Amino acid sequence: MKLPLGFRFAGVHAGIKKIAQKEDFTLVHCPGGATAAGVYTQNFVFAAPVALDRARTPASDIGVVAVNSGNANACTGERGLSDARQMARLAATAVGAQENQALVMSTGVIGVFLPMDKIAAGATAAAAKLGDDEAAFLAAARGILTTDKGIKVASRTLTIGGREVRLAGMCKGAGMIGPNMATMLGIVTTDAALSPDTAQAVLKAAVEDSFNCISVEGHMSTNDTVLLLASGAAGQKSEVGGQRSEVSNRPPLTTHHSPLTGSDLTAFQTALRELCIELAKQIPDDGEGASHLITIHVRGMKTRDEARRISQTVANSALVKTAVAGADPNWGRIVSAAGYAGVPFDPAGVDLVVNGHKLYERGAPVPFDARTVSAAIKASRETTIEFTFREGTAAVRFWTSDLNVEYVRFNADYTT
Amino acid sequence: MKLPLGFRFAGVHAGIKKIAQKEDFTLVHCPGGATAAGVYTQNFVFAAPVALDRARTPASDIGVVAVNSGNANACTGERGLSDARQMARLAATAVGAQENQALVMSTGVIGVFLPMDKIAAGATAAAAKLGDDEAAFLAAARGILTTDKGIKVASRTLTIGGREVRLAGMCKGAGMIGPNMATMLGIVTTDAALSPDTAQAVLKAAVEDSFNCISVEGHMSTNDTVLLLASGAAGQKSEVGGQRSEVSNRPPLTTHHSPLTGSDLTAFQTALRELCIELAKQIPDDGEGASHLITIHVRGMKTRDEARRISQTVANSALVKTAVAGADPNWGRIVSAAGYAGVPFDPAGVDLVVNGHKLYERGAPVPFDARTVSAAIKASRETTIEFTFREGTAAVRFWTSDLNVEYVRFNADYTT
Repeated sequence: MKLPLGFRFAGVHAGIKKIAQKEDFTLVHCPGGATAAGVYTQNFVFAAPVALDRARTPASDIGVVAVNSGNANACTGERGLSDARQMARLAATAVGAQENQALVMSTGVIGVFLPMDKIAAGATAAAAKLGDDEAAFLAAARGILTTDKGIKVASRTLTIGGREVRLAGMCKGAGMIGPNMATMLGIVTTDAALSPDTAQAVLKAAVEDSFNCISVEGHMSTNDTVLLLASGAAGQKSEVGGQRSEVSNRPPLTTHHSPLTGSDLTAFQTALRELCIELAKQIPDDGEGASHLITIHVRGMKTRDEARRISQTVANSALVKTAVAGADPNWGRIVSAAGYAGVPFDPAGVDLVVNGHKLYERGAPVPFDARTVSAAIKASRETTIEFTFREGTAAVRFWTSDLNVEYVRFNADYTT
Repeated sequence: MKLPLGFRFAGVHAGIKKIAQKEDFTLVHCPGGATAAGVYTQNFVFAAPVALDRARTPASDIGVVAVNSGNANACTGERGLSDARQMARLAATAVGAQENQALVMSTGVIGVFLPMDKIAAGATAAAAKLGDDEAAFLAAARGILTTDKGIKVASRTLTIGGREVRLAGMCKGAGMIGPNMATMLGIVTTDAALSPDTAQAVLKAAVEDSFNCISVEGHMSTNDTVLLLASGAAGQKSEVGGQRSEVSNRPPLTTHHSPLTGSDLTAFQTALRELCIELAKQIPDDGEGASHLITIHVRGMKTRDEARRISQTVANSALVKTAVAGADPNWGRIVSAAGYAGVPFDPAGVDLVVNGHKLYERGAPVPFDARTVSAAIKASRETTIEFTFREGTAAVRFWTSDLNVEYVRFNADYTT
């Protein structure tokens, strides 16, 4: 994995999670500063770190992002806001940045105050371990996890104006995942140069097709945050014989390249969108207890928003999700879920294809062998549900997990 | 149970359900005709019987309602519509009514054509068994069930203008239950006299507070229907020594009393609303695999619609439902679910009380003993979640079931 220049990473165990040894505190340090953009949960009950970051982004000179897992610092009132500010201050101090150059993210249990002594110790310990190698990046990716089975990372490189531009992202999330952000945290770092407004615009567009098109159970979290950090340091370092030289700790901001525009920006946007989709799909694929990643592809609606509302409604149907878990080609559940999304369509113009098998055509059932389709669902980790409507040309893809007894067992006993 | 005058009931086994012996075909006969009103699913994918009934209600002279379980006649295209019309014709013929005096309801598997030979045999067999006693009513109530554990019935009597007026209702539903009607069928019979327009208005109002305030998993069905049948035959029969005399098979319509108005109508409305709530609550209480009936009471919103959207969103949260199943007082899930209903509110003005224990007050956690609250949830079949907002004075109650492994086991293998 080629990491973007201009970043250092660390993940340490600060004791916030109950489980010993596991990383639960992460720092992403931008020694030379970075443009930062953020998109956040639309939940009216939003966590303290969301309030803090929302006020500080987009920004032109962010120095550090601190993330803790094991505690969401959500529903914690005034004290929670004060704790989030203190967490930012501790992280900034630990890396020698200004307080207002720090962003914070938290994920974990709701309604418990942050253990500030552990946060302070974590910031100091993580600052001492910062590195720009893959091991440091992976430790940071582990530090943001909660119920995830494993890390979720993705990277891209592209060449813009003769210079290699790199993107590397990490995210977390396995439960409380609904669209418009969920308990998902994501950080995408790049050494491309972006203005704050451009960063905000390209992040928003990429999230729309990725993190906003996933769900596990449709429960929108209080803490959802995706940050894009752009150091502008691309091409500042040579690689010799595949060995990368040391990154300078604090390259002056003045050496950054001009912000991307035109076709360069378009190329970057495509890479960012693909990276975000690759990251986002890993979340329902790791949905709590999930045995299938379900892709719902809706075509032929009047608008993208209508297509998304239909795909999202199908994705969040417990009956659809349990049918896939049981490899049951019960297409009536799928078609009926589309019908209650609140989007009008002609029921006589609907086709449905599951894993390549046409089950429903122009509003009427198609004879099919249930055993064959059931075997196809059982045989593959991925289930594809394709709708064709005859209302227009808008389309969308949405990803979700199935729903099986493991999800329920897991969630019936999370805090007690 | 005192049954309304002017109705006869039957439920027979017609062989539509796979399970032998179980009733799967019901007739409700109104020998002297009845005013009929209906409310139906808002799903754009609606079943053929919904299309037929919607076109025929409100009506002043309905003679018979035929219901089959085991097959929903949904997603069956043109042939489904033709089958629904034929089912109405068969029922009308069986009781000597006109074809357009018949209404039909179907519930069961989606996407399979109705077995019309069995429907025909069922209509004939049921017509031969029609009776006005409780045994006949209960057989009819059994004939509409699918995955329900038992019958769902309720009755009321009230005195209006010196005459005893009776209401008796039946409903079904245990899965695919979302608001705005779900796979729930309901029939409320009364011997009050109502004009078609009044019947439609009072049914709509009663359903708004009852069947539209329940969910199991929030999946709105293709077949949801609640009918109100008003014979106007109240007080036409004397009761001697607790023994009811034979109801006349076809009292002339002209003997019906004048339609209810004014305070008489208000009294009837109250009874209808209470009866509908009593019926509706039985559905989530019998939710597939449910171990708790959850009541969500939202107070202090600007409008009833806003209160309902919040209560419905909380009700449909898998994380809330699994927490209750596990007796886990994880109130963060409850508060965060309220926040993504799309209804703005001040998070600092929210209180939450679960089973009488205050867990959250004015946007901040209240210290509580998790074991005590968990024990309270475990000890009772009913869990009460009370929200107080500080936005206004509108309130609503909503009922749902919890979500446990039995639901998933059951629904992962329904058709195959």
